[in-house]
Amino acid sequence: MAENLLEELVEGLRCLPGVGRKSAQRMALYLLERNRRGGEKLAQVLSDAMSRIEHCKQCKNFTESELCEICSNYKRDASLICVVESPADVLAIENSGAFEGHYFVLMGQLSPLDGIGPEELGLDTFETRLQSQQIREVILATSSTIEGEATAHYLRELIEKYQIPVTRIAQGVPIGGELEYIDSGTLARSINERRKIEY
Amino acid sequence: MAENLLEELVEGLRCLPGVGRKSAQRMALYLLERNRRGGEKLAQVLSDAMSRIEHCKQCKNFTESELCEICSNYKRDASLICVVESPADVLAIENSGAFEGHYFVLMGQLSPLDGIGPEELGLDTFETRLQSQQIREVILATSSTIEGEATAHYLRELIEKYQIPVTRIAQGVPIGGELEYIDSGTLARSINERRKIEY
Ligand SMILES: [Zn+2]
Ligand SMILES: [Zn+2]
Repeated sequence: MAENLLEELVEGLRCLPGVGRKSAQRMALYLLERNRRGGEKLAQVLSDAMSRIEHCKQCKNFTESELCEICSNYKRDASLICVVESPADVLAIENSGAFEGHYFVLMGQLSPLDGIGPEELGLDTFETRLQSQQIREVILATSSTIEGEATAHYLRELIEKYQIPVTRIAQGVPIGGELEYIDSGTLARSINERRKIEY
Repeated sequence: MAENLLEELVEGLRCLPGVGRKSAQRMALYLLERNRRGGEKLAQVLSDAMSRIEHCKQCKNFTESELCEICSNYKRDASLICVVESPADVLAIENSGAFEGHYFVLMGQLSPLDGIGPEELGLDTFETRLQSQQIREVILATSSTIEGEATAHYLRELIEKYQIPVTRIAQGVPIGGELEYIDSGTLARSINERRKIEY
C-alpha cells in the first residue's frame, strides 16, 4: 500500500504500458503543477471508457454502442470484410485510408495450446455473417507470423465453404524501407511475388 | 470534440507529458484489452489526487494533509532546511537517501521578467520560519542554471540577515543540469560535500 496520495497516483500511472517509476513521477507532478483540469478530464473519460466500452455485436471492435461506427456507417461497403487480429490493426488500416469496407476483429490469434480455438475468436458469429449477408470478398489481414498465417489458413478454409472470394494482404518490402535492413524472408517473398510493371 | 469514447480516451491520455497519439492509442487499447481493473483504479486515484492534493502549509510540497509527511515526521531534523525548486527535486533528494532534514519547495525560480518575485515563491512564509524556528543550517539546492544561481543568491542574502549558516550543494551537479534528472549517487555526493557560503 502506498503511503500517500501522490505515491498512489505514481503507482496508478505505472499500470500504463511503457511507463516506469520515473515517467510516472514526471506525469504525476506535471498534472498537479500544470494541468489539473486535464487530469480531472482524463480521470472522467478513463472511468467512463473502462465501464462503458464493450465489443461491437457484429465486428467485435471496441465501441460503447451496440454497433460500432464503422458497422453502422451506411456509406461503407458492407460486402467487403477485412479480418484483423486487434483493434490496433483497425486503427492502422483506417489511418492508411486504403479501405472502405467493414471489419471483423478476432481479438487474438488461433492458439490451440493456449486454449484459443475458433469459438474463442468468435468465428461462429463470423460464419453466421458470411451466411446471412451478401459478401463479395473477405480480406485476411492477420499478422505475417506463424500464428497469424495459421489463423489465415484456418479462415481461408472456413470461407471457402461459402464460395466467397478470399484475399490475403500483400507481403513485401515496406515503402521507404531500405533493402539492406529488411529480413531475408521478407526480401525473398517480395522477389518471388514481384509484379509486372505496366507501361 | 472526439467522435467516440475510445477516441476521447486517446485524447485524454495525450494530456500526459511525453505521450503522443501513437502511445496514447497503445495505452488505451492495452487498458481495454488487458487491464480494465488497473484503468479503473487509475481513474479513481487520479480524480482523488487532482481534487485533494494541495501544498504543505510549511514547506509547500504536495500533500493531501495540512502538513506533509516530511514536515510532520518528528524523526527528521527540523533545524536543517533544504531549499529546492520543485517537488520532483524533493523526490530526487529523498531517493538519494543523503538528507534527513526538512525542505522548502519554491515551486519555481525567481524570474522578475515573468512576474515571479519573492512573494510568488512564498519567501515571506519562509522568512517567518527562519525567525520563529531554531534553524542551524539552510542548504540551497536550486538548479545550477542561471536562474537557479540567481535564486540561490537572493536566498543567501535573505538568510544572511538572520545569521543562519547557509550552504550550497556541491558542484558535483553538472552545470546546466536539472536536479530531477541527476542520478542519486551524484546527488548524494553533492549533498555530502556541500560548502559553506561565506558572507
Ligand atoms: Zn462493428
Ligand atoms: Zn511540508
